[in-house]
Amino acid sequence: TLAAPAIAQANPKVTWRLTSSFPKSLDTIYGGADVLAKYLTEATDGNFTIQPFAAGEIVPGLQAADAVTNGTVEACHTVGYYYWGKDPTFALAAAVPFSLSARGINAWHYHGGGIDLYNEFMAQHNIFALPGGNTGVQMGGWFRKEINTLEDLKGLKFRVGGFAGKVMERLGVVPQQIAGGDIYPSLEKGTIDGAEWVGPYDDEKLGFFKVAPYYYYPGWWEGGPTVHFFFNKAAYEGLPPAYQSLLRTACQATDADMLQKYDYKNPAAIKSLVAQGTQLRPFSPEILSACFEAANEVYAEMEATNPAFKKIWESIKAFRSENYTWAQIAEYNYDTFMMVQQNAGKL
Amino acid sequence: TLAAPAIAQANPKVTWRLTSSFPKSLDTIYGGADVLAKYLTEATDGNFTIQPFAAGEIVPGLQAADAVTNGTVEACHTVGYYYWGKDPTFALAAAVPFSLSARGINAWHYHGGGIDLYNEFMAQHNIFALPGGNTGVQMGGWFRKEINTLEDLKGLKFRVGGFAGKVMERLGVVPQQIAGGDIYPSLEKGTIDGAEWVGPYDDEKLGFFKVAPYYYYPGWWEGGPTVHFFFNKAAYEGLPPAYQSLLRTACQATDADMLQKYDYKNPAAIKSLVAQGTQLRPFSPEILSACFEAANEVYAEMEATNPAFKKIWESIKAFRSENYTWAQIAEYNYDTFMMVQQNAGKL
Repeated sequence: TLAAPAIAQANPKVTWRLTSSFPKSLDTIYGGADVLAKYLTEATDGNFTIQPFAAGEIVPGLQAADAVTNGTVEACHTVGYYYWGKDPTFALAAAVPFSLSARGINAWHYHGGGIDLYNEFMAQHNIFALPGGNTGVQMGGWFRKEINTLEDLKGLKFRVGGFAGKVMERLGVVPQQIAGGDIYPSLEKGTIDGAEWVGPYDDEKLGFFKVAPYYYYPGWWEGGPTVHFFFNKAAYEGLPPAYQSLLRTACQATDADMLQKYDYKNPAAIKSLVAQGTQLRPFSPEILSACFEAANEVYAEMEATNPAFKKIWESIKAFRSENYTWAQIAEYNYDTFMMVQQNAGKL
Repeated sequence: TLAAPAIAQANPKVTWRLTSSFPKSLDTIYGGADVLAKYLTEATDGNFTIQPFAAGEIVPGLQAADAVTNGTVEACHTVGYYYWGKDPTFALAAAVPFSLSARGINAWHYHGGGIDLYNEFMAQHNIFALPGGNTGVQMGGWFRKEINTLEDLKGLKFRVGGFAGKVMERLGVVPQQIAGGDIYPSLEKGTIDGAEWVGPYDDEKLGFFKVAPYYYYPGWWEGGPTVHFFFNKAAYEGLPPAYQSLLRTACQATDADMLQKYDYKNPAAIKSLVAQGTQLRPFSPEILSACFEAANEVYAEMEATNPAFKKIWESIKAFRSENYTWAQIAEYNYDTFMMVQQNAGKL
């Protein structure tokens, strides 16, 4: 029996364009858009397609959200904190200093009401947002000299994104906004003293270890950053329910896939970087604590003036406290034991 | 334009039955089958459906894989280690003692060749297997008395599954096979001295804290156990390519979703358990080390006689070593700092 019209309605042709905030050379993070496109195309026999474009092909990487808001494209793949200058609330579901780890933020997104809370805010920008990738905690960046004390931060020219830069300014850092491709020459010439990028796998490609050998950790401003798919709200709402559901499922799978890819690629990359002369250094407790206090000051100011920010940040903070109580019991002790075995050469 | 026949072929009616190894009362782990069913039904307008049945409704929970092998049902939701008695290789992609954490095993499944390696083995059982959930590291179980030394393990009657039990036997533990519903009365009467189940959220429902207050961690035999969907291989291969792809995507999303749910529910549950009198206790380094050595003896014996086991375990081990080198750098230091803040009342 061929109930043709009903079936035909179920799989209409939908062709969307997606602008990425990333260059194709970042196969992990740019690759998330390819993964989503593949999942959708395959599941619908090519009827629901999303064509990804690299940053700059349609609009510059940092204008991706605007292109979705105004309907230039139906979708983008980006990080919410790129738009913190419009409103810092954009950053909360992506990453802000000393927020949740990758597993923590995912628990909050999918089962702690995070997706709905973020979309309540995003609706005013005509955006429906879904998590679409995570890098895991990032590294703290590459430095030409060792950073041992708070004094070493004073006047330090450090390439870092907006929200984290705002926190670091309080400690005397001079944040630098520099596009990815310009970081290496700036570090080489000494125009800047340091730069953060992502983590071992992505960073190795850019060769920073040759000109700034001190590789600090952790990147306390990105404990588990979520990369998002932003969809034009009207475009999403115009999809048949089956495509809406498929899109949500495919985004959840893509979100997981990116972290899985980073988690597989980073271990080999850190080994390779160390073999090539990278000097690993932890930020001192003194520095981390000062940054934590500075971040809390920034949060208090934002909460005092921005109700949307406050609503979401309070939700994250409540779960953050519970999360870091539980995480230190079974998970932390298991990992610690395994790390001790690894360091003793027993794994 | 209505190209009816082609479109009709693309969304044929497929109705599968799935037998779960779990009772419906375990909403987290049983719930994974409901999540998968929902994702598939919604994305195909009800054309590709999987109907989940609780353990015992079609076959007993521990016979789920056999029901898939012989085609009684097209699918099951189960844990590979339930079948370790047939062949210990079944257990490797699920959880074995001192293997990878949840993030580690997922990196291996999806980007380290794990899914293909496991299916190479599973093909002889007419099964195509995909990850379909993870609980995160489990707890080490409930004990009527404190377990302080290796001496305390001698003669201890402990309810625990097969593979881990085989390791514990070497330390004098007497493993007990007891169905979930019978654990509480056995602990209460003292027929057994201890029992492992899952983690805070699932364990709280069964009330063990009332009769065995010492709650040990970590569950070193389940560092990040993967729950699998097993599909009858011929049934999977008979699906149109679009449904095959959708099924893979939906399983990847479901896999992530279960961990996200556990990660959200466990923190509140551990708080509640402690408030009700649960005594948290870490296994001592002495006990963990002895268990680790015993596990390695078991692995060496299995590798010597079982080439399929050896092939997969060597692949996991190679990544385990890299994983626990990288994980101790940025991720561990970030988490540690955050836990210190939490314990200082600053989160």
